[in-house]
Amino acid sequence: MASPSALTSQSDDFPRWYQDVVAKAEMADNGPVRGTMVIRPYGYALWERIQAEMDARIKVAGAQNAYFPLFIPQSYFAREAEHVEGFSPELAVVTYAGGEELAEPVVVRPTSETVIGEFMAKWIQSYRDLPLLLNQWANVVRWELRPRLFLRSSEFLWQEGHTAHDSYEDAAAYAMRIHLEVYYDFLANVMAVPAYVGIKSPRERFAGAINSLTCEGMMRDGKALQMSTSHELGQNFARAFNIVYQNESGQSELCHTTSWGASTRLVGGLIMAHGDDRGLIVPPRLAPIQAVIIAVRDEPEVLEACASIDARLRDGGVSTALDRGRGSFGRRVTDWEIKGVPLRIEVGPRDLAGGVVTMVRRDDGSKHVVALDRLATTCQGLLEEQQRALFNVALARRDDATTDVTSVDEAIEAAQTGFARMAWDQIGELGEARLNEVAVSVRCIQRADGTTPVSPDEPDLVAIVAKSY
Amino acid sequence: MASPSALTSQSDDFPRWYQDVVAKAEMADNGPVRGTMVIRPYGYALWERIQAEMDARIKVAGAQNAYFPLFIPQSYFAREAEHVEGFSPELAVVTYAGGEELAEPVVVRPTSETVIGEFMAKWIQSYRDLPLLLNQWANVVRWELRPRLFLRSSEFLWQEGHTAHDSYEDAAAYAMRIHLEVYYDFLANVMAVPAYVGIKSPRERFAGAINSLTCEGMMRDGKALQMSTSHELGQNFARAFNIVYQNESGQSELCHTTSWGASTRLVGGLIMAHGDDRGLIVPPRLAPIQAVIIAVRDEPEVLEACASIDARLRDGGVSTALDRGRGSFGRRVTDWEIKGVPLRIEVGPRDLAGGVVTMVRRDDGSKHVVALDRLATTCQGLLEEQQRALFNVALARRDDATTDVTSVDEAIEAAQTGFARMAWDQIGELGEARLNEVAVSVRCIQRADGTTPVSPDEPDLVAIVAKSY
Repeated sequence: MASPSALTSQSDDFPRWYQDVVAKAEMADNGPVRGTMVIRPYGYALWERIQAEMDARIKVAGAQNAYFPLFIPQSYFAREAEHVEGFSPELAVVTYAGGEELAEPVVVRPTSETVIGEFMAKWIQSYRDLPLLLNQWANVVRWELRPRLFLRSSEFLWQEGHTAHDSYEDAAAYAMRIHLEVYYDFLANVMAVPAYVGIKSPRERFAGAINSLTCEGMMRDGKALQMSTSHELGQNFARAFNIVYQNESGQSELCHTTSWGASTRLVGGLIMAHGDDRGLIVPPRLAPIQAVIIAVRDEPEVLEACASIDARLRDGGVSTALDRGRGSFGRRVTDWEIKGVPLRIEVGPRDLAGGVVTMVRRDDGSKHVVALDRLATTCQGLLEEQQRALFNVALARRDDATTDVTSVDEAIEAAQTGFARMAWDQIGELGEARLNEVAVSVRCIQRADGTTPVSPDEPDLVAIVAKSY
Repeated sequence: MASPSALTSQSDDFPRWYQDVVAKAEMADNGPVRGTMVIRPYGYALWERIQAEMDARIKVAGAQNAYFPLFIPQSYFAREAEHVEGFSPELAVVTYAGGEELAEPVVVRPTSETVIGEFMAKWIQSYRDLPLLLNQWANVVRWELRPRLFLRSSEFLWQEGHTAHDSYEDAAAYAMRIHLEVYYDFLANVMAVPAYVGIKSPRERFAGAINSLTCEGMMRDGKALQMSTSHELGQNFARAFNIVYQNESGQSELCHTTSWGASTRLVGGLIMAHGDDRGLIVPPRLAPIQAVIIAVRDEPEVLEACASIDARLRDGGVSTALDRGRGSFGRRVTDWEIKGVPLRIEVGPRDLAGGVVTMVRRDDGSKHVVALDRLATTCQGLLEEQQRALFNVALARRDDATTDVTSVDEAIEAAQTGFARMAWDQIGELGEARLNEVAVSVRCIQRADGTTPVSPDEPDLVAIVAKSY
């Protein structure tokens, strides 16, 4: 029996459990410069899967990828006053390049909002150029004094979408489309995270936005993690960067813009949304390795059977890894469990003699003795079941840990172990300030049926309240 | 008939033709900070295709992707003296971050060699950890005083592979494998560029390398462009970064390392290797859009036919774009030609009445009247023919423009319009210095049969000599 003793348990010390998983699953290391991060191959493979799934959805939504420069003139940050306030203490500034001091310092992008605004203004002439739908995959820098791998790092990887439209309605509808068809859909159907969706309160809104849509996941310690945001920027950015178009009657009008992003934070969210005391649990649809074929012993006939099983599963569209049976079996099992590989296929001489192998699910540890001639279909079936089970278990856990409350005091109490749900109009500005004093916040505001409203002024809205990362 | 008048002709002014193509095909713009580049959606789509094809080959070669930090402590650049000399005037340095001056300035990576060396030293313990095969897709910064979009920019995108091995032989074999199976194969079979392969002369070698393998493409102005390099670093980097392993007898030994890279420069190479006076020519296997379906007129039955053709081609695995027939037909044809889309499918009412459409190849302008029921197979056939033709035409052009010479003077003369080939041992150090005085250089040294030698000391080697970008 494998021992999970390598990891701190979640109930003992959740932050330390997190650190242990990141280290022992070989996902990331701290970089040499404060707050930076080295993403190791297994962590990066997870990010590549996240990227691939999100990128496909972004393309279906009609946005095109482009790439804007890392360096932005410092003067750009003075143009959009509200925006710059949100970022200035976090900026890293290059003052020296090409062997001399620069006449104007350049900022390492904390986001590309400003430079993209500048180029949208250049590229957009008439209503025929709209909507302009751009997305960028890039690194950004926001100096962090209290870094945590994946969750808060001075440099992180993300995608940032930026779009320009000819009407408020079109911009709002597009932000909602990205929110639901890219982010919510990816989270629910690939990452198996049943996020609460909604809009940010005016206090929590992105600087410069007129409305911010958010997906909030519940972590296993009962805290919230913001998984994605989609902002309606109204005409604020268009005004600051002079993004205008000629309408059909030849008059000049300001565009309506949006921006939306998700980052390597999602890797941290993946760890904390599903992981257990044995390590990471990766949903099959996201897993870079869906099944690991483990030779119980390093013997020729076992290895031969493993290679043949591997080939058959790959042909069946399963991503596999092969463990060639060197070293302790228990230790190897523990290592694959820490990495959260969905299915472990144990291949030993006794099983082989009986024409079977044993498949073990990572989520519930259930063992399945499978005839060799039903390998591929059983494997795919178990992966699909596990995908559904992870979502359902996370949904039940989320709902169990969400308490309906009627006062701010009750909300604060509920937020010590989970989420609180409360009528939005009963919280008010004062209530929100009281929550914030004790490090609790309104994560999102939603309709009573759990859908995303178009504005915080709709009637009968509820607020989801929690502590957060 | 479409007029290519929008572009400067290659024979009039090649550099200006290049600039025109980059601008008119909407590939890139200059960024606001000197030397930086905005890669527009069409340029980025080409880079995404390059990435996808190279990444697949890199993974087949067993390397794993990872991500290392953008910021590197300045002190790291003092460790490998030869290496730092190659870069210091090009460095951009962050001196101010998080609202205050930094105690130690940090360098924006010009390459990740040093930080990857540091972490290899940490991760490698024993011979069982070798080979360690890493690759990274990232942006890097080398300050450019004379920037040119895609060819030389202060920030560019690239992949950099870094590997550690337990013997010289294994490291050299891996560098050769990447050189041939990743770079040469991609260039020949996807980008349709018949690169000259070989090794760099000691004078042209990468600082710190003991051997550098290179792929050199011929551009349409007869100059060379270095498309990729793969370096054997011997034990130099391992010594500088203390990358050691315990061998099977328990003794500590230095690793042998390699590094290899290719960048967004390849997009510039694509333009200049195939482009003509009508614009870009993209080989079908690389093209983000392989066929554009052009409605000759904006009429319901034409658009309906276009949509149905589009659906059938997509089902047949062809990447398509739909041109809905607004504005001048000639102008639209010119625009698609500038973008280099391999196949243009013209759909007009007269053709439709006859049950046919007209397909036009971008490379030779040949027109093919195709029955609607043979659409998908003909389209695929024409794409495959064009892929082969582009390679063969480029190969013939390369061979025609390569002159066998027997003196340095002749080599200099031949290099004014193309490449020279000359016995390597007849050039010598003095000859190479004379070439360099007139901006001509030894691009690579190869065997007489055109294959890559393992060292410049092999007998009977020939040098490929040219002007270069």
